[in-house]
Amino acid sequence: MAHHLQQMLATHPSPAANVNQEALLRCIEACFECAQTCTSCADACLGEQNLQMLVRCIRLNLGCADICGTTGRALTRQTEPDWTLLKQQVQACAEACRACGAECEKHAHHHDHCRVCAEACRMCEQACRQLLAA
Amino acid sequence: MAHHLQQMLATHPSPAANVNQEALLRCIEACFECAQTCTSCADACLGEQNLQMLVRCIRLNLGCADICGTTGRALTRQTEPDWTLLKQQVQACAEACRACGAECEKHAHHHDHCRVCAEACRMCEQACRQLLAA
Amino acid sequence: MAHHLQQMLATHPSPAANVNQEALLRCIEACFECAQTCTSCADACLGEQNLQMLVRCIRLNLGCADICGTTGRALTRQTEPDWTLLKQQVQACAEACRACGAECEKHAHHHDHCRVCAEACRMCEQACRQLLAA
Amino acid sequence: MAHHLQQMLATHPSPAANVNQEALLRCIEACFECAQTCTSCADACLGEQNLQMLVRCIRLNLGCADICGTTGRALTRQTEPDWTLLKQQVQACAEACRACGAECEKHAHHHDHCRVCAEACRMCEQACRQLLAA
Repeated sequence: MAHHLQQMLATHPSPAANVNQEALLRCIEACFECAQTCTSCADACLGEQNLQMLVRCIRLNLGCADICGTTGRALTRQTEPDWTLLKQQVQACAEACRACGAECEKHAHHHDHCRVCAEACRMCEQACRQLLAA
Repeated sequence: MAHHLQQMLATHPSPAANVNQEALLRCIEACFECAQTCTSCADACLGEQNLQMLVRCIRLNLGCADICGTTGRALTRQTEPDWTLLKQQVQACAEACRACGAECEKHAHHHDHCRVCAEACRMCEQACRQLLAA
Repeated sequence: MAHHLQQMLATHPSPAANVNQEALLRCIEACFECAQTCTSCADACLGEQNLQMLVRCIRLNLGCADICGTTGRALTRQTEPDWTLLKQQVQACAEACRACGAECEKHAHHHDHCRVCAEACRMCEQACRQLLAA
Repeated sequence: MAHHLQQMLATHPSPAANVNQEALLRCIEACFECAQTCTSCADACLGEQNLQMLVRCIRLNLGCADICGTTGRALTRQTEPDWTLLKQQVQACAEACRACGAECEKHAHHHDHCRVCAEACRMCEQACRQLLAA
């Protein structure tokens, strides 16, 4: 994704001012990647034997996937941005990733997909916080 | 929508505790309705002659539609809810509706779809704030 | 939803020609409603005791919710429509609703949320087929 | 994205049988990438001076972004897949990418973001057709 994304940011007629473009690129990419990974983890959990223990994980995966997708798209829209609103959305996304990553971490030793998903959630949470700090 | 939505909330095996069910129902319904209306207003604006004046309106419509959809789905998920996260999402949604409704209001005298959309945004903002207060 | 939706269709600057507006309105409304109901049924199923028996139901609910949302938004966009593409999307949506409704129906006697969801799926499938026939 | 995606597919408890895993991976990745690129191109077009000429491009971008996202998530869900339905969705996605890519191509000489987006659309269309053929 990074290749096209970098080109799209570079060719935008009115790039967001006062924003670290590197942090923005990393956050958009992490959001789309985390949306995919959480959708996948929810589905993989549904295929496991100890399904009952994974209910909270599935639930957080579904919410996190949704918020990451919306946040990735919101950050992609650079024409007439409303930064107060964007910050709230990025903060909500960081919080969703933190909660989902912590739950996935609990199942990481039993399920490799939860281990990978916990990693994707941590990376996205970090990318969100670095964008907020930039 | 209200009919099926009410039945779904009533038949849920673990309904969200400590939440005003009436305020929840109104907020979910308003979110889905506002998502549809904003998608429609962005599209109607694209069909207008004075398109250049409507860029900010289209931009806010697209973002608001996306956030309202995600918020409506997040509130729909009542199993293992994380209220800290949900509150952040509902606040972001209220802020998106406020910004989009204010912009649509500016074009309400020239475009009826903006007048209707401003109304849907205000109703959704209000429903979000009432849920946060409940 | 019907109230704002009807007004948005009526105030659009370039309404879709050669389309039965009544069938279009019903289909958009049914798509958004089914998206909400399927999201809710997946979540309610996650709260049930006999979770293992509901895996296929949850799986179809998640896919149906997603397709219904995308189809409802696609039909909402009336500027420069591509009917070949829209028809394919509405057919895929009808098929998703048929499959999800049939699975929900199997659990309707044990779970009221599956009964309500089966009804929403059937209504949406029917609205899709009536739009395709109109 | 490829890194996490590959791991998620490899660690799934019930991977889709009778499917070329390489073609599946490429198609999921292309769908998420095209969803991001089309969202970005619609937004970049909104920032251009000759906006009126880009209406059809924005319109197709918004629809293509939505369908690619839904298709990427549908292909991600490997538990209890319904291939008849998935094929219809992938076909609709290929058609959306074809239409959007062809329109973007028309503006490729004037707008670099349309050139990049046309490329992403063609890659996604191709990935969809290769998955259908595999």
